[in-house]
Amino acid sequence: MKEVKIGILGFGTVGAGVVEGLLKNGELMAQRTGIRPVVAKIADLDIETDRGVAVGKGVLTTDALAVIDDPDIDVVVELVGGVTFAKEFVLRALKNGKPVVTANKALLAEAGRELFEASAKSGAGLYFEASVGGGIPVLRALKDGLVGNQIQSMYGILNGTCNYILTRMEREGLDFDTVLADAQRLGYAETPPDLDIDGIDTAHKAVLLASLAYGAPVPMEAFTIEGIRGLSHREIEYADELGYRIKLLAVIRNVDGQVEMRVEPSFVPMDHLLASVNDSFNAVFVEGDVVGETLYYGRGAGRLPTASAVIGDIMEAAEGKGGVCDWLLHNESLPVRGAEDISIRCYLRLSLKDQPDVIAKVAHVLGKNDISIASIMQKEQNAGEQVPVVFLTHKALEKNFAAAMEEIELLDVVDGKPVRLAIEDFE
Amino acid sequence: MKEVKIGILGFGTVGAGVVEGLLKNGELMAQRTGIRPVVAKIADLDIETDRGVAVGKGVLTTDALAVIDDPDIDVVVELVGGVTFAKEFVLRALKNGKPVVTANKALLAEAGRELFEASAKSGAGLYFEASVGGGIPVLRALKDGLVGNQIQSMYGILNGTCNYILTRMEREGLDFDTVLADAQRLGYAETPPDLDIDGIDTAHKAVLLASLAYGAPVPMEAFTIEGIRGLSHREIEYADELGYRIKLLAVIRNVDGQVEMRVEPSFVPMDHLLASVNDSFNAVFVEGDVVGETLYYGRGAGRLPTASAVIGDIMEAAEGKGGVCDWLLHNESLPVRGAEDISIRCYLRLSLKDQPDVIAKVAHVLGKNDISIASIMQKEQNAGEQVPVVFLTHKALEKNFAAAMEEIELLDVVDGKPVRLAIEDFE
Repeated sequence: MKEVKIGILGFGTVGAGVVEGLLKNGELMAQRTGIRPVVAKIADLDIETDRGVAVGKGVLTTDALAVIDDPDIDVVVELVGGVTFAKEFVLRALKNGKPVVTANKALLAEAGRELFEASAKSGAGLYFEASVGGGIPVLRALKDGLVGNQIQSMYGILNGTCNYILTRMEREGLDFDTVLADAQRLGYAETPPDLDIDGIDTAHKAVLLASLAYGAPVPMEAFTIEGIRGLSHREIEYADELGYRIKLLAVIRNVDGQVEMRVEPSFVPMDHLLASVNDSFNAVFVEGDVVGETLYYGRGAGRLPTASAVIGDIMEAAEGKGGVCDWLLHNESLPVRGAEDISIRCYLRLSLKDQPDVIAKVAHVLGKNDISIASIMQKEQNAGEQVPVVFLTHKALEKNFAAAMEEIELLDVVDGKPVRLAIEDFE
Repeated sequence: MKEVKIGILGFGTVGAGVVEGLLKNGELMAQRTGIRPVVAKIADLDIETDRGVAVGKGVLTTDALAVIDDPDIDVVVELVGGVTFAKEFVLRALKNGKPVVTANKALLAEAGRELFEASAKSGAGLYFEASVGGGIPVLRALKDGLVGNQIQSMYGILNGTCNYILTRMEREGLDFDTVLADAQRLGYAETPPDLDIDGIDTAHKAVLLASLAYGAPVPMEAFTIEGIRGLSHREIEYADELGYRIKLLAVIRNVDGQVEMRVEPSFVPMDHLLASVNDSFNAVFVEGDVVGETLYYGRGAGRLPTASAVIGDIMEAAEGKGGVCDWLLHNESLPVRGAEDISIRCYLRLSLKDQPDVIAKVAHVLGKNDISIASIMQKEQNAGEQVPVVFLTHKALEKNFAAAMEEIELLDVVDGKPVRLAIEDFE
């Protein structure tokens, strides 16, 4: 039986998970594919710590190049993390003609083009299923199963930490800071948590999804990236009352040949499947022009779910499948729609003084900016208190919302900072 | 650029959908894969009817063998349907060394082993993504993305017609016969509808899922197959009250090395994602030992969704990928758990005479059969009327339920036929 000799760079959490999965199910995989996976070498600076998995003698090394340059290694798995060393290692392995499997979304989002070019040049494939949606085989769905489709839109819940925080805020009525602190204590959120909660991680993954769908990278600077930091529990309560859940959503749409991208906390109608994606789970809703609506759901992170995707890629590389790299270089870069073209519905919450005609003043500003109001919700308060008023709008241009919000904040009847969130109706 | 010459057998609804998809997105697929799909030949007995898609001169023929035996054809697509001719065509194409793409689940469920053997012998792949879950790339997920996993369980909503009927019964408060008649009028259900509503189609698909997960076919005779025919609207109302939806569920579980399979209408907890799969959509919930829980959702049938899967398979065949057939022959046949080993929870609805100690009599029979009661729901009725009483049980052996139901039906306090449905807690 054919063997595939695997060289792993980085023996941390995921690396140990990959070894565990291969030890547990290697024989099954050999039966399924006719190829036996063998962990031949593992490089890490720390080869003393016990990782809880059995590794053969002479497998561990502190020298990454001893893996990358070893002519016996068939597939290199990059689990080093970060950008600097990881990039150097991946480029060198590709140059050596070795297919590379990686879970490093930051590396791909920031240096993807260079890596895809190196892959196209050497003919060695670059596999990165684990970089988006953890164990969910969603990149494969895009490049294989849905190959006959123009992708019209994708809506993703792509960050498990954010979804975990939002779910707990919703279920337990807690505020953001409390849940974040608890999530950090439990190991569900990193310290510092910025990459996750500010939407950067979600944006990295959105860039990869867009690349696969449209054959070109999208620069991170070209679209709105907003996280869930400081989201108030009041928004979650109002959303619930209005029939919505709040999710940190990546929106990727093909509109008249341009790509519309956004990463922001968004209202999702309760009867949409994405509203039922809870805890640290991820999901991607994909609409193709032939297949219609599809959805892919699973664990977005974690030692074993990520290992599942890495192992799937190792076997694909071993079977000599893949080679998406040409397509990823197909377009120079994508025309991205700006705020002056993107139309969305919004939820606005304002804290208004309790005096006559305050609503009229706000409505006037909205009207002046071509934003029409779909509904207003105001609850009775005690006289003299601040009155929270919620507006749901019809669709309007994003730039008009920006302008209106600036004006509204300056109105003397408005207290504090107005809150604006997108409403996603999946239309 | 490399071309793949496609020969299509059967120019019906799906056949025309495949041609439409290839015409629309063929150029995009060429960019993505480096292979240009070309519809070279289409065989059908009727080549006069306008199918609404443009077909080049000389492409249409009434002679299937002129396609199958043409040395220029690279991939044969079987969309003839039925078992007799389809089987002959597929075997001949495989023998000719041509990879075959098919959407014919009845053929695969009934003659799979013979076809997989022919494929293994000739080395030509057999691709059948479109046979399960329409456009959802769930078979690929099993054989590629989750290749490193032991599949612990799969729960599928696999028949769009049944799910459409159940959804309308639930939303509109209609009874089964009314919705079925309407579904037939609208073309959502066939006439006769037996294959769908009696669970046979779902069972065919379950057999294919089990084959891919466990490397062997499961005989249809070896497991319970029950459809939704005659399901009363009262069950749907009670389910709703108890926090469940009723779905026609295929359950496939690996329990201690044996396969547990069932196809039956089942109570699904409302907060489970499968409870939110409505209308004619399908979904498969898959648990792997490495990846954890995943779910795949989309249109389970229809001209274009099915075409999307067929086209994906064509490109996979063209790229020379695949070759799962050895694995599908790996085990002689699977050890299947029988009713004497399968443990389930149940919902029982009985119509009881309004007299003292009726509940005690029923409870006595259940207890005697080792079935313990989790809860009882009885609403106040007018004196002297039949009293509907609902029991939810704890887990008990399926054979004990069968015995208990027989006894209960004979009790003089019980009117009419008791209703029993499975409750699926996904544990």
